[in-house]
Formats: sequence, structure tokens, C-alpha cells
Amino acid sequence: MQKLVLIRHGESIWNKENRFTGWTDVDLSEEGYRQAKKAGELLKKHDYNFDAGFTSVLKRAIKTLHCVLEELDHLWIPEEKSWRLNERFYGALQGLNKTETIAQYGEEQVKKWRRDPNEHPPAITKDDERYPGHDLRYQHLTARELPLTENLSETMDRVLPFWHEKIMPTMRLNQKVIIAAHGNSLRALVKYIDHLSDEEVTNLEIPTGIPLVYELDDQFNRIRHYYLE
Amino acid sequence: MQKLVLIRHGESIWNKENRFTGWTDVDLSEEGYRQAKKAGELLKKHDYNFDAGFTSVLKRAIKTLHCVLEELDHLWIPEEKSWRLNERFYGALQGLNKTETIAQYGEEQVKKWRRDPNEHPPAITKDDERYPGHDLRYQHLTARELPLTENLSETMDRVLPFWHEKIMPTMRLNQKVIIAAHGNSLRALVKYIDHLSDEEVTNLEIPTGIPLVYELDDQFNRIRHYYLE
Repeated sequence: MQKLVLIRHGESIWNKENRFTGWTDVDLSEEGYRQAKKAGELLKKHDYNFDAGFTSVLKRAIKTLHCVLEELDHLWIPEEKSWRLNERFYGALQGLNKTETIAQYGEEQVKKWRRDPNEHPPAITKDDERYPGHDLRYQHLTARELPLTENLSETMDRVLPFWHEKIMPTMRLNQKVIIAAHGNSLRALVKYIDHLSDEEVTNLEIPTGIPLVYELDDQFNRIRHYYLE
Repeated sequence: MQKLVLIRHGESIWNKENRFTGWTDVDLSEEGYRQAKKAGELLKKHDYNFDAGFTSVLKRAIKTLHCVLEELDHLWIPEEKSWRLNERFYGALQGLNKTETIAQYGEEQVKKWRRDPNEHPPAITKDDERYPGHDLRYQHLTARELPLTENLSETMDRVLPFWHEKIMPTMRLNQKVIIAAHGNSLRALVKYIDHLSDEEVTNLEIPTGIPLVYELDDQFNRIRHYYLE
């Protein structure tokens, strides 16, 4: 049996302002730092430690990982960052206030955008300042990889290669892994690990800053999972 | 021409207490954090950015790198940590107060231990709690690699493979590199890059928290070097 720990970043400034964030590189709020530190304390209380950390290229996830590792006195473990663990790319919704978006498009539509794994938010165009092709950190990606919008299925399609090529091989070496990522990149991972249907994933919400432990068999199937408290 | 930035970690708690640190994993002091942040601000002012960061497995260097990258909004670049960039292993001097050590052994001897590249501090034994073999982060090292004491030449011998195998190949890809490390691992690097003699390196002191820029030709010889201000 192997344990894998997933953690969604602590509250970000835009979580707090109730805005769609996606790939916007928003910092943690003060409460977010507090949550990340508390997650580290919880892991420490339960005697967790890690051999490798994985995270996205967005600072709210990176800093959450650093806060956790600092509490565990494990800042020295290797960490790998990848755009593949980024939050879902929310297209033209990025930056919009969720309440205003509901007022404009209706609650039903916004719920679909947020939850339905096959629903696309409105796309941006390549001349939009939010297009990731303008950002240094995505310069090595092809135009096909750079999203204009993304549904959860597409998020899953780009998360899973990283799971198969990086995370699983690390775990196969019996290394203890922590993944600090985002609501939807973690939902995508959980959908895969737990064989969830589209319906099941619709209602799956992963809270910020609480370590989610997966106990996996040698085929990386879930034995059980639980939140630390 | 390629630029390489070296930075010695900000003041640590033991720098402040005037104790020999070596591989002891001491945190930054408040002044150390301030220095690291200021280094980041300086680099930002001069429009530096980086494609890759290298550091040791000691938190005072790791945190210095993180502080710098945070100021530059470049926390997302890949970073690689290696024991090869650790401070010189100070043997049985680790933890001792420098003034008391001078009182006990004399100023001349202590100066030799600190500066003479061929002088070994007193060795520890393997049952000493300071022996790195007891520390999880060094479990992958062989007994030959785990130091009991180290002179600067030996530090250089274990730093240079990392330079040749990791840092130089990264720079050959035209990636802009920052190295956050320690007084003696940086002295070792500088001795190599600048072809310094043992006598020349004896008087070389690299200040904490000030970015040291090397401009290198395509053979990685120094064109010039300077501290940022």
C-alpha cells in the first residue's frame, strides 16, 4: 500500500473576491497562507513526510507546497512544477466576478461551466491579454497545447500525461509523493484514480488547504481515501 | 556572452550567533530574509530574470532562492537542489562559537581552518549526531561521499561534478541560471571559473545576500564579474 497526498492550494485573493481565476497567477490571501501552514501542521502531527513534491506553475499552488514542506522541515525534497497541473483554463470567464457572471448568464449556465465536465466556458482569442502564449512560462508549449478555453475533460487530458510520465513512475520507486494543485486539476486526477463517471465528478468539490490522503494498491487503485483532520 | 548569477544565502541564525554552521540546517535570521528579499529587488531593478535555479539542500539557501524568485515573480521556474552545493562540511567545528574556538585553538589555526583550501577542521566520527549519514536527505549517498570533515579542495571536488553535469549543460541551452548557495561552495565555484590559485582563494570572501554576476564567454571563461548594487 502506498499513500499519496493531494492538497488544493489555500484560499487565493481571487477566491476571496469570488472571481474566476483559471491560469491567472493570483497570490494566496492571508487566510490562504494560514490554511497552507495549517495543512503542514496537520501532516506533521500525523507523521507524514515526503520524498518528492509536484505542483503547477502557479504561485498559489507553489507557495502552498513550500508552506507545507517548511512545516515538515522538508524543503529539501525535489519538487517538479508543470503547467499540466495548472487549474482549468477558464477562458473568457477569467477575472470575472462569479456573482456578476450569474446575473448575466443565469445560474444554470454558470453551474454548467463550473461543474459539467463537457461544458466549455466562452473562449478567448489569441490577441487576448489572458492568452497564455504571451506568458514566458508557457513559451515551450505548442499552439495546440495552449488553451483558449478548457472543459474538465480537456483538463484531464493534459493532467494525465504528467500522472503517467512523472508522478506514477516516482511512486513506483516507493517514493512518498505530495501534489499541491488546484480544484479542477485535482478533480481531474481524482476522476481518473477513482474511476468516477461524469455525473459523479459533477458533484465533487475538493476543499482548499486540507490534505486529502489516497491509499493506493500496487496497481494505483484506491483502497481508501480521507481528509486529514 | 552569458550571465550567471551567484548568490550567497542571507544571514543565518548561526551567522548571527557567530557559530560554525557547515551542513547544520539553520534557518535564515530576520536580517537574512531581508537581505534575500533585497537581492530579489536589486535583480528586478536591473531587469534580471532566470530560466533555472540551483541550490543546496539546506534551507537557508533554498529560502534565499525562493525569496529572490518571489520578488522576480519567477517562482515557476524549475529549481534543482543538490547536496553538492551545500556549505563546506566543517567537521567537529559545526555548532561551535567562533570566538570560543579561537580562544581554544588560537587565531592562526582557526584562520587556517576557515581559509586555507588544504586545511581540514577536526573530523567527526560516524556516531556523532552531526554525521550526515543520520539525515534522511543524504540517504542516497555512499559512505565515501558522506564527509567527516572537508577542506575547500574537497568541497570543490564535490561541487564541480554538479557544475559540469547540471549547471553548464543548462547554460549551454542558453538558459539563464541563478545559483543560491553558501560561502564555501560559491568560493569553490569561483576558484574554478576564475582559475584562482590556493593563495588567491584564501582571501576571497563572498558577502551574504548580494547578487554576484559573472559574464562568461562561450567556453564559460569569465569576461567580467561584479556585484549588483
